[in-house]
Amino acid sequence: MELLTVVKVGGGILEDTELLSTFLEKFSMLDGHRILVHGGGVSVTELASRLGISTRMVEGRRVTDSEMLRVVTMVCGGLLNKELVVRLQSVGVNAVGLTGADMNLLLSVRRVAGLVDYGLVGDIRTVNVNALIDLLDRGYVPVLAPLSHDGAGQLLNTNADSVASLASCALALDYRVRLVYCFERSGVMAGGDAGGEVIPELDRETYIRLRDRGLIFGGMIPKLEGAFRALSSGVTEVVVTSAFCLGGGGGTALTLNRGR
Amino acid sequence: MELLTVVKVGGGILEDTELLSTFLEKFSMLDGHRILVHGGGVSVTELASRLGISTRMVEGRRVTDSEMLRVVTMVCGGLLNKELVVRLQSVGVNAVGLTGADMNLLLSVRRVAGLVDYGLVGDIRTVNVNALIDLLDRGYVPVLAPLSHDGAGQLLNTNADSVASLASCALALDYRVRLVYCFERSGVMAGGDAGGEVIPELDRETYIRLRDRGLIFGGMIPKLEGAFRALSSGVTEVVVTSAFCLGGGGGTALTLNRGR
Repeated sequence: MELLTVVKVGGGILEDTELLSTFLEKFSMLDGHRILVHGGGVSVTELASRLGISTRMVEGRRVTDSEMLRVVTMVCGGLLNKELVVRLQSVGVNAVGLTGADMNLLLSVRRVAGLVDYGLVGDIRTVNVNALIDLLDRGYVPVLAPLSHDGAGQLLNTNADSVASLASCALALDYRVRLVYCFERSGVMAGGDAGGEVIPELDRETYIRLRDRGLIFGGMIPKLEGAFRALSSGVTEVVVTSAFCLGGGGGTALTLNRGR
Repeated sequence: MELLTVVKVGGGILEDTELLSTFLEKFSMLDGHRILVHGGGVSVTELASRLGISTRMVEGRRVTDSEMLRVVTMVCGGLLNKELVVRLQSVGVNAVGLTGADMNLLLSVRRVAGLVDYGLVGDIRTVNVNALIDLLDRGYVPVLAPLSHDGAGQLLNTNADSVASLASCALALDYRVRLVYCFERSGVMAGGDAGGEVIPELDRETYIRLRDRGLIFGGMIPKLEGAFRALSSGVTEVVVTSAFCLGGGGGTALTLNRGR
């Protein structure tokens, strides 16, 4: 099967001009088919506050009312997505920026209000695999914004890590999928926020232990849960790394079983 | 040749919930291939002022510095474009929202500063006909935002009327193209802003006379210039009309020669 690299790039990199240039350079040199998925939390919060809209996060997820959804759509669906596309085009990558509503790529259901009502937040139910394969076959590089739709005219804010892992799972039957979470750090740190060494290989058991000891927390938990789910759904390789190691080498490689 | 209807929808319709619903209903019922091009001036000016960015228009064209371009990208490339896409998807139209950077659809050059320096404004040099035909062949309905790129990493603000007329000209060799400018009014008015009767058929000679008498002015001038250019470049039909007459009937039909 052909190689497909799905890269999730975090807001921290998008915000940093130098890091972003490094990232785009490394990304443009990747072999095989590519899909780029981006977040944008930092810029969303920034524009929201400039507009006097307050931000509420619960376990790293944004509570999204209709005003906040407009901000997410402007920043993630517009500003950041097109900034990535125009810069990729300038280095010869034929990028096409899309949300989950475009081409009906990501159909989701609004998350039911439990202890927390996240508002206009969607959990993906269907990835339009054929549309993505069609784009990849024609040499396009889809750049996916963290937005999906419910099919009834409503955009829904959708976690970018979930978009990356679910798209990877859906495409694992057609490609040898390498899923790379690219962020400001070099990988998963043994010492949590205290830093310390990068864990070169992280198996599920060790992840659970570190999580229970509070060394893995916040947004890293859903990220890694999705990553392990991807591995058990046929994704070949999952790596958490920095912009500098995007090409390979360094970072934290996830494995399902200890000492695979 | 197959029919392609290129519809330009103005900001005035996008701003009006009821008009927009009427417009989308009529648009979804059009036969043949379709491309939707939208502006967004009103919303751009509104967000800009909320962010304390002042707007300067010259002859209906927006002077665009880098701050204003960010606003245009957020509002036109993001908010309005995705609102149109998600609503079209809900009525069974497989829309895909794109700027001129996506798929390298619209390559332009920055307008040279003359008496006025419009800033980051682009004049289209190349329309990626193959990419558009490819999308239309697959049943997609491209929804084009008024942004192009220079190929060197710079997005450029681009007049939506020009996007519509130049895309129509570029596709006139492959389709029987009907270009429809859809706005708040019923057509071109004999009495200018004073209103009066809709001119059912407007030839170039009459247009020039009305323009010189000041009855056609402002944004309507570049709109009609582009429209007549489209007619002389092989576009089959050009109509200026309201959301209600999108399906046909009513509005102002343009012709090159008197009493064609």
